[in-house]
Amino acid sequence: MTGPVNLASKLALFSEHWSPKIVTGFNGNDVMVVKAKGEFNWHSHPETDDFFLVLKGRLTIKLRDGDVVLGPGEMYVVPKGVEHCPVAEEETHLLIIEPAGTPNTGDPATAVTKVQV
Amino acid sequence: MTGPVNLASKLALFSEHWSPKIVTGFNGNDVMVVKAKGEFNWHSHPETDDFFLVLKGRLTIKLRDGDVVLGPGEMYVVPKGVEHCPVAEEETHLLIIEPAGTPNTGDPATAVTKVQV
Repeated sequence: MTGPVNLASKLALFSEHWSPKIVTGFNGNDVMVVKAKGEFNWHSHPETDDFFLVLKGRLTIKLRDGDVVLGPGEMYVVPKGVEHCPVAEEETHLLIIEPAGTPNTGDPATAVTKVQV
Repeated sequence: MTGPVNLASKLALFSEHWSPKIVTGFNGNDVMVVKAKGEFNWHSHPETDDFFLVLKGRLTIKLRDGDVVLGPGEMYVVPKGVEHCPVAEEETHLLIIEPAGTPNTGDPATAVTKVQV
């Protein structure tokens, strides 16, 4: 558990893309900020829904049956098991929430290590 | 599960204070927006952490050992069991997340019914 969190200040601490940083915890979930740019990979999370809130920029979440496009102040929850591929043409800042230990790529072999900032 | 959610559009659908509205779900949690103004009540949630993100305005979360003051883009998680009292001098808009069924006042007898918008 951490103190009050200023999301913009946390985002200013790093520059790499698609590397979620933990800013606090909530009932066993990691609350994270991430900078997105370019296309991530198609993946799914068999055990958890995937929470996306756009703080800045524009995120397209490709789904097999259509795209979801989100601007600032817009959010979407990808249901567990649903394949998706996030894409950001410009650098986009996100708040995401996942149970601690969830691999960001859907696969522990390729997942980045999530560190706290 | 619902589609993409524009938080400002959801907040425009109602005017009452301290009455959380469910906008989507995430792993059995209700994701809600709420308009805060004035002082809520001192309470705690023995079974869950309490997630606050300020979207607009300014929220003071009074705690027994000091206050946390949050502006837009700032968040705080009140640990489970910790007494707190949210206060907003001006109308303040929040994103909050709690396990479905959590009473907003900490007490089912006085809790509001959370409806989806």
